[in-house]
Amino acid sequence: MSKLSEKAAENIANVREKKPLIHNITNFVVMNYTANALLAMGASPVMAHAQNEVENMVSFAGALVLNIGTLTDDWIASMIKAGKRASKQKTPIVLDPVGSGATPLRTSSAKKIIKEANISVIRGNASEILSLRHEDSKTKGVDSIHSVDEAAETAKILAEELQTTLAITGPVDLITDGNRVIRVSNGHPLMGYVTGTGCTATVTIGAFLAVDEDPLSATATALAFFGLAGEVAGETAKAPGTFMIHMLDALYTITPDKLQEGCKIQENL
Amino acid sequence: MSKLSEKAAENIANVREKKPLIHNITNFVVMNYTANALLAMGASPVMAHAQNEVENMVSFAGALVLNIGTLTDDWIASMIKAGKRASKQKTPIVLDPVGSGATPLRTSSAKKIIKEANISVIRGNASEILSLRHEDSKTKGVDSIHSVDEAAETAKILAEELQTTLAITGPVDLITDGNRVIRVSNGHPLMGYVTGTGCTATVTIGAFLAVDEDPLSATATALAFFGLAGEVAGETAKAPGTFMIHMLDALYTITPDKLQEGCKIQENL
Amino acid sequence: MSKLSEKAAENIANVREKKPLIHNITNFVVMNYTANALLAMGASPVMAHAQNEVENMVSFAGALVLNIGTLTDDWIASMIKAGKRASKQKTPIVLDPVGSGATPLRTSSAKKIIKEANISVIRGNASEILSLRHEDSKTKGVDSIHSVDEAAETAKILAEELQTTLAITGPVDLITDGNRVIRVSNGHPLMGYVTGTGCTATVTIGAFLAVDEDPLSATATALAFFGLAGEVAGETAKAPGTFMIHMLDALYTITPDKLQEGCKIQENL
Repeated sequence: MSKLSEKAAENIANVREKKPLIHNITNFVVMNYTANALLAMGASPVMAHAQNEVENMVSFAGALVLNIGTLTDDWIASMIKAGKRASKQKTPIVLDPVGSGATPLRTSSAKKIIKEANISVIRGNASEILSLRHEDSKTKGVDSIHSVDEAAETAKILAEELQTTLAITGPVDLITDGNRVIRVSNGHPLMGYVTGTGCTATVTIGAFLAVDEDPLSATATALAFFGLAGEVAGETAKAPGTFMIHMLDALYTITPDKLQEGCKIQENL
Repeated sequence: MSKLSEKAAENIANVREKKPLIHNITNFVVMNYTANALLAMGASPVMAHAQNEVENMVSFAGALVLNIGTLTDDWIASMIKAGKRASKQKTPIVLDPVGSGATPLRTSSAKKIIKEANISVIRGNASEILSLRHEDSKTKGVDSIHSVDEAAETAKILAEELQTTLAITGPVDLITDGNRVIRVSNGHPLMGYVTGTGCTATVTIGAFLAVDEDPLSATATALAFFGLAGEVAGETAKAPGTFMIHMLDALYTITPDKLQEGCKIQENL
Repeated sequence: MSKLSEKAAENIANVREKKPLIHNITNFVVMNYTANALLAMGASPVMAHAQNEVENMVSFAGALVLNIGTLTDDWIASMIKAGKRASKQKTPIVLDPVGSGATPLRTSSAKKIIKEANISVIRGNASEILSLRHEDSKTKGVDSIHSVDEAAETAKILAEELQTTLAITGPVDLITDGNRVIRVSNGHPLMGYVTGTGCTATVTIGAFLAVDEDPLSATATALAFFGLAGEVAGETAKAPGTFMIHMLDALYTITPDKLQEGCKIQENL
């Protein structure tokens, strides 16, 4: 997909030039790592969750990241407040529904955020994403999906129902806006041994959304960039501690040219 | 102690095979590092503290870790809620009474958790553990202990009074269930220069409790494994930053055979 | 400034010998990194924010660090409670007004803390520091400052108005108590790519305040030490992930002699 790999190079160059402010309302586990990832790739992170501050803060932001990883009711209220303001301003929002489907609180909170705010992109694993279906969805549960084609078909229907772009990440990432379907196969197995790599993929999408108006290409190119950082880290690191540090390094050192070359993005026709 | 070093090898192999879910309600300082440590050793961490979620979350868990490091009243309430549910299900619980004895809030919170839930193991330093004594305890305070034998005797009495397994960690770790006493001497001096190494020892105990029904052997083998990771890290790292990263690496790379060989576990007869 | 570089050597030696307890009420993003930085340099960090605990905790502390990075109203209340107790005991307090000037909540919270507690040192960037001006200040805003001399003059007036020591950090740090003005030019460009380097500079000031009664020399020497750690890290690290780990290493390995030699401290006459 030469067009999308060119776009990837353009997007990372723009992140580094424009240094967009990314407002994060996220979980306690990954705050430090995602802030460092955003800085390393060239963006400007800010973390702020007070209900009497989030509307002010998001008004300066190039994108809003909402992540329900260690949620409580008051954090969800802040996310909705920030999400509504961002929607009004047309600031792109990316949602990470961490653990949706695992507990009622997580599922209902993720659905509430989707209902109240205009979410540009939702990134999660297959079971998190499928837990977001409405009761009257035409899609089936994760257990009835037996092939990559069925997965893509389900994702397309769900993206249309939720009126958003979905990114289902795994060994191969599947991105769809209900119309187009893109697969990204960059990545490294050690990414599964570092906490918050999913959350960090999400903030990377946030940074790319701040410089690319098309949620589909922003998401696909962000995931290719993030996965390539894993590949670069895995060239030297053989265990998770060193690997997570080398990933931060790679987010800083990968040039637009190297990204364009290394992208493994495939669009289905 | 050839039997316990064999058990250590068996336990780490089982953690990596079964990938037990470890539910943590813990402090803000160490959340990222302990989640990474659990992932590196092969377990699956989840952090969740909302009062309207913890009972759901702990119902899936192989073990529950309670850590009062940056406590407030609402977090203690969540810990007790999760602890009660875990006790009912017979899910093992490990408590880290960080700072108990230093402030009234910490001491009373730790005691309250012990009273309300069925704690399998409590890990702390000597003054934290001794602060947990009931008013009518037969043991004396930390200042009246003048030898390792007195320490072991005191720990045995206290373990019996609290009806739990105690792990008093330091240069040599002392583990007792009131009956048997085990000493583990794995470790490295740089562990004292990394925040949350005690808390990370605690989550390692949590992971081992999820695969070993005997709290005494789970705790001793977990501490030997964690201490050995320090030793392995210390072979190459000479300062705390590099050391803490190499410890995560070692939790991933130490094989069951290497652990069996490297265990420094001694049981007193 | 041979006298201040000697003082720097003395201060770091004292931190390592006395291991002062530094009580931090700080933001979620940097808690782990600042705790590790304090441990690496030889101090003892404690993080505690419960309103029913902070007064107890600060009573043991050698210094109190207040950082409004991810503030909410209840955390501000805790900061004020701890700050009042510290002021009463004459325990030095360092304030990091993260994001003051960016949102009304941050500016008003920073001002409230300054009003209620006796702050020894405030460290921030130029716009954060200038946002702390009273309405009737004789100083002008950040946009009317066009030279380093104007910046120094403004800082002197503001320090006098706020009756504290100000540290305005950047490529060159400017420290003033309203009377003397000191410039510190240690540092490395990669520090801008690691989250919380400002916050970590602040806790370093906290550690030095615990062993040096003069806020001006404590602050200048702390910033020289912290900046030198950046320089040392930058000798081997070429990207932010490795750099942030090597900085922790440098905080541990820099000797008093090396610090005395490497200090770039200049006092204006």
